[in-house]
Amino acid sequence: MIRAGVIGATGYAGAELVRILTRHPETQLTLLTSRQYQGTPFSDIYPSMSGVVDLTCESYSLDRTIAETEVVFTALPHKLPMDIVPELLTAGIKVIDLSADFRFKSVSSYEACYQPHSAPEWLKKSVYGLSEINFADLQQSELVGNPGCYPTSILLPLIPLLLAQRIHPDSIIADSKSGVSGAGRSLSLTTHFCEVYESFKAYKVAEHRHNPEINEVISQTIGREVHVTFVPHLVPMSRGMLSTIYADLTEQTTMDSIFSILEDYYSDHRFVRICRNRRLPETLRVRGTNYCDIGFRIDQRLNRIILISAIDNLVKGAAGQAVQNMNIMFGLDEALGLDDVPAPL
Amino acid sequence: MIRAGVIGATGYAGAELVRILTRHPETQLTLLTSRQYQGTPFSDIYPSMSGVVDLTCESYSLDRTIAETEVVFTALPHKLPMDIVPELLTAGIKVIDLSADFRFKSVSSYEACYQPHSAPEWLKKSVYGLSEINFADLQQSELVGNPGCYPTSILLPLIPLLLAQRIHPDSIIADSKSGVSGAGRSLSLTTHFCEVYESFKAYKVAEHRHNPEINEVISQTIGREVHVTFVPHLVPMSRGMLSTIYADLTEQTTMDSIFSILEDYYSDHRFVRICRNRRLPETLRVRGTNYCDIGFRIDQRLNRIILISAIDNLVKGAAGQAVQNMNIMFGLDEALGLDDVPAPL
Amino acid sequence: MIRAGVIGATGYAGAELVRILTRHPETQLTLLTSRQYQGTPFSDIYPSMSGVVDLTCESYSLDRTIAETEVVFTALPHKLPMDIVPELLTAGIKVIDLSADFRFKSVSSYEACYQPHSAPEWLKKSVYGLSEINFADLQQSELVGNPGCYPTSILLPLIPLLLAQRIHPDSIIADSKSGVSGAGRSLSLTTHFCEVYESFKAYKVAEHRHNPEINEVISQTIGREVHVTFVPHLVPMSRGMLSTIYADLTEQTTMDSIFSILEDYYSDHRFVRICRNRRLPETLRVRGTNYCDIGFRIDQRLNRIILISAIDNLVKGAAGQAVQNMNIMFGLDEALGLDDVPAPL
Amino acid sequence: MIRAGVIGATGYAGAELVRILTRHPETQLTLLTSRQYQGTPFSDIYPSMSGVVDLTCESYSLDRTIAETEVVFTALPHKLPMDIVPELLTAGIKVIDLSADFRFKSVSSYEACYQPHSAPEWLKKSVYGLSEINFADLQQSELVGNPGCYPTSILLPLIPLLLAQRIHPDSIIADSKSGVSGAGRSLSLTTHFCEVYESFKAYKVAEHRHNPEINEVISQTIGREVHVTFVPHLVPMSRGMLSTIYADLTEQTTMDSIFSILEDYYSDHRFVRICRNRRLPETLRVRGTNYCDIGFRIDQRLNRIILISAIDNLVKGAAGQAVQNMNIMFGLDEALGLDDVPAPL
Repeated sequence: MIRAGVIGATGYAGAELVRILTRHPETQLTLLTSRQYQGTPFSDIYPSMSGVVDLTCESYSLDRTIAETEVVFTALPHKLPMDIVPELLTAGIKVIDLSADFRFKSVSSYEACYQPHSAPEWLKKSVYGLSEINFADLQQSELVGNPGCYPTSILLPLIPLLLAQRIHPDSIIADSKSGVSGAGRSLSLTTHFCEVYESFKAYKVAEHRHNPEINEVISQTIGREVHVTFVPHLVPMSRGMLSTIYADLTEQTTMDSIFSILEDYYSDHRFVRICRNRRLPETLRVRGTNYCDIGFRIDQRLNRIILISAIDNLVKGAAGQAVQNMNIMFGLDEALGLDDVPAPL
Repeated sequence: MIRAGVIGATGYAGAELVRILTRHPETQLTLLTSRQYQGTPFSDIYPSMSGVVDLTCESYSLDRTIAETEVVFTALPHKLPMDIVPELLTAGIKVIDLSADFRFKSVSSYEACYQPHSAPEWLKKSVYGLSEINFADLQQSELVGNPGCYPTSILLPLIPLLLAQRIHPDSIIADSKSGVSGAGRSLSLTTHFCEVYESFKAYKVAEHRHNPEINEVISQTIGREVHVTFVPHLVPMSRGMLSTIYADLTEQTTMDSIFSILEDYYSDHRFVRICRNRRLPETLRVRGTNYCDIGFRIDQRLNRIILISAIDNLVKGAAGQAVQNMNIMFGLDEALGLDDVPAPL
Repeated sequence: MIRAGVIGATGYAGAELVRILTRHPETQLTLLTSRQYQGTPFSDIYPSMSGVVDLTCESYSLDRTIAETEVVFTALPHKLPMDIVPELLTAGIKVIDLSADFRFKSVSSYEACYQPHSAPEWLKKSVYGLSEINFADLQQSELVGNPGCYPTSILLPLIPLLLAQRIHPDSIIADSKSGVSGAGRSLSLTTHFCEVYESFKAYKVAEHRHNPEINEVISQTIGREVHVTFVPHLVPMSRGMLSTIYADLTEQTTMDSIFSILEDYYSDHRFVRICRNRRLPETLRVRGTNYCDIGFRIDQRLNRIILISAIDNLVKGAAGQAVQNMNIMFGLDEALGLDDVPAPL
Repeated sequence: MIRAGVIGATGYAGAELVRILTRHPETQLTLLTSRQYQGTPFSDIYPSMSGVVDLTCESYSLDRTIAETEVVFTALPHKLPMDIVPELLTAGIKVIDLSADFRFKSVSSYEACYQPHSAPEWLKKSVYGLSEINFADLQQSELVGNPGCYPTSILLPLIPLLLAQRIHPDSIIADSKSGVSGAGRSLSLTTHFCEVYESFKAYKVAEHRHNPEINEVISQTIGREVHVTFVPHLVPMSRGMLSTIYADLTEQTTMDSIFSILEDYYSDHRFVRICRNRRLPETLRVRGTNYCDIGFRIDQRLNRIILISAIDNLVKGAAGQAVQNMNIMFGLDEALGLDDVPAPL
């Protein structure tokens, strides 16, 4: 049994990690930390887990973490992980960080939209945890920068087509829509019930911090700098993310040809499902699961592809992919502990 | 492995049975039937299960059912099961019926609110599948009348207090609130999105067919005829049911005394959780799970207890309790296949 | 034109007052105050009113208020109004207070659930603003204690039947359900989107501060002390309130007899609609309006009536009734400025 | 008073017309027709209007319509209006048709996505009812083809920039999101509550029938054929539509320059609001109103503009704009009867 800890367990991504790790057959959850709730039983904060999870939140301690865990998931606001992760790594603990702190290769890109980086030497050693894309590197990694939810939903459909040179990188527009849990558990007017219900809106248009993250990965994929237009929106629902991605095709192509590229690329990975038979992804169909459903259409007159992907922002977009990465790092089946049967509704 | 079939697999309760049985460790799902969708892959109807469930819906056939199953779940509209269940039982197949057809002991009560019963001789042999209450009888049963969702949420908190003679049976008022999935997948204006969203309403006030079901069980419990006031309401959400139940206490009593009665009664049953520490049940905390959370308050000046229970109407209120009953009938741990870790939200 | 001010204009009730008063044909909105947003244009806070309302929020000033208004609506948290209202009244300004500060006749009842009252001498002069019930007194009043939303929805159906002695006062149970806007615009986990969506729950069971308010009005109505059981619930929607009220009938009675009592009582008041033809109230049908829809059923075997009422908690439950009271105080048609045609959905 | 009728009054657009026309100060609503509900009081179908609207639905009759009305709104499924509108026009009645039947200039475009047109000679005489854009033509018109909801939300922000030659017409991508009421009141799984709630999805990707409507108007605007990529999505809420529109700028430009173009173009039209001060449109801010809110950002590195517009799909996207067009046709202030003060939430 792998002894695992969650640093920052009481945010939504942290709590979802607790849910998944509790029933993971090869993991023992040994440590939950919380600045805000130290000393409080976890199930007092999330009563759904009453009678199921009996750990109590502690304040973070390096010694305790070294004593109790082999792997930790840091589900903290960015800036905090870069201060504590290096010492955990030095102590031989594997780390999967869900913040932005270890996602970037370029220090300057990180610093342009976050803040000065206190552990830049670790950026090179960190592996970007897009599980299906970086599978081989993840097997060797000690530190994973777990991807943002938006980048996950945008990069999974795009990368196979970029590698196959079927789309013009400079033409990419990603119009994404997220449920409210993506904004976390911290209080703000933006997530106040009455301000959200019956409201649909865009936010941080072309200035969201996931934009440079997407740009960097695509740039690395094709070997030159690319800038993508990215607009996130807020949907009045709790969970789920759908991205509609527009790109010009490099040549006239058939739907079958695109299906082949996508299906071949993901043939060894069960969590990416390519939607056939005119079905298109819907968030409800991936709710609570680690799936990324991908579908597409071609606007023939403009020779433009429209890719659509759906994930659960808290699972494949955060905690689920983090556990998938842990599985890969430890040489386990990538689906272990993540094989819930999706609900019909 | 127990070979199991779902007769009527494409309604919401049927689909939820498919979800649960697919990951049940001692069950092999061998047969799905549907009048409307025969020949259609189940995952075309519920794309969430694409890549997970690969059965195709068939039309119902007695011979096929006998050949393929040891236990069947009939998730059909009432009236249909009573015509097909007897021949299945005669063939030695165990049956858990989710309709009202085998819930009543009294033929006349059934016929007063449904229609003439074509298999009244089976009513005596059927066990009412309120798992925790009728556990011993269920162990011996071949036929289970699985309870309605409202009766489940109302009877579980009431029965221990009725048995302990702490409440006046004639004073009971049950004010229940259900998510929309309880109305099923059939189309109607009542479940048309725009008619439900931003709407809260009562329906079938004091004339819902679950009312005589509740009356009969309470009457049997205390040994004389009782009539309960029951008012169901529709909540603009998909899943979840909360019942607020009012009853006069028979004597001055403390909260601790009530806690003891409830906790003692359910001490061997993990799916009933008694809420302590001033926590009260909320539907979100049981969503997607087989739990029934129970809490209460006492209105001291009136010596009246207010019991509150929360279930997921499709799980503990239908498919989950049905599988729990199967577990009991087959001598398995009642929680087998039902031990999802509840989600934080 | 009546010059009107809203003290505390940026909460939900205050903002709804701004909406209604802006189009009131006999009112000129002259003053908006806000502690939090002084100096901010009102339409920056509520962009829906951009181009429609061009007032800027000010901090409260007695002199400004005296100079600018003839009537003010105080939409502040309780405790604040009792400190500023007396001096406004002394200056000859009529006041409609939406807090609890001037709702009670009994100082001790108020103080038992709020705090010491600093202006108890005004409680006797204040009129409880249940418009249809206290119409005559409101015509003479200088100070109105505008009712709570729950009391409004519970008292309007009950009072005619209590006056006609058709129900036993001691048997009353009120099970109420409110949309989230009733909790106001202040941030809390209780109103955080993800904690509410897909959740239905009871709160402050038998200990909500509207309970003594209901008790006092009923006690005054029938001339002896009565205690009502009251349980509020939170519905995952923005606006709307439905109360289901149970009471034992004093004698066998017909539905027609009850209809007559209700219809006669409210024959001069258009905002109370008695639902005929088996229709029952639904919150969607009164959304955004000042209506209170009332319907009922009789549980014959128990001789118990089940009354159901629906209001918009921000309109008839707060701002709308406040303006209705202003109309009555100023001798105008009570419906002036409140005659929106309700939307179909 | 203008005597007005609504042909097809019981769908959502028809019912919204009833709401608006009932309180229009210069209109008398004289006739409501419905195939499905003839003989039924309108307020039985929409109980919100009980006590407010006392008309009864009739079956359609040419003679009755001629006798009772000067203007009719046809809110029928396409194909029906083209059979009855010509005879109404011949009888001198003005017609505002909310279907697609009279929106197109090109018969072949209409026939390519709908069906053979039975009154093609009227297409030339019909005016496309985008009120602010075709104001002058509407003043002279007898027949208006009221725009689709999606085209309204997409064309209003685009046309001023196309006329000013600031954007490349061939680069336009419109990603639109609509509340469920746009799908109407007819029952289907697509609008079944549990299939929509917690779900976000795209539909009719690059093949929606509003796409050729958008193409035709833009082509006419700039004088050559243009094809736009258009993808509609369904949002789990009742009302509201937001369009996010991407286009390449023809030259480096400032935000102020774009603001000037938009504000100058709409300076005489109060229902188009250009959002300043970094505010972006949200559907909640236009709910229940005839406003179209427009905002934008520029993605500098790509010299691409992102326009965002929000409307209420049933008001500015259907019934409200139809009444606005009636006002223009009859020489009234375009805002008459449409000047509700928007609600704060």
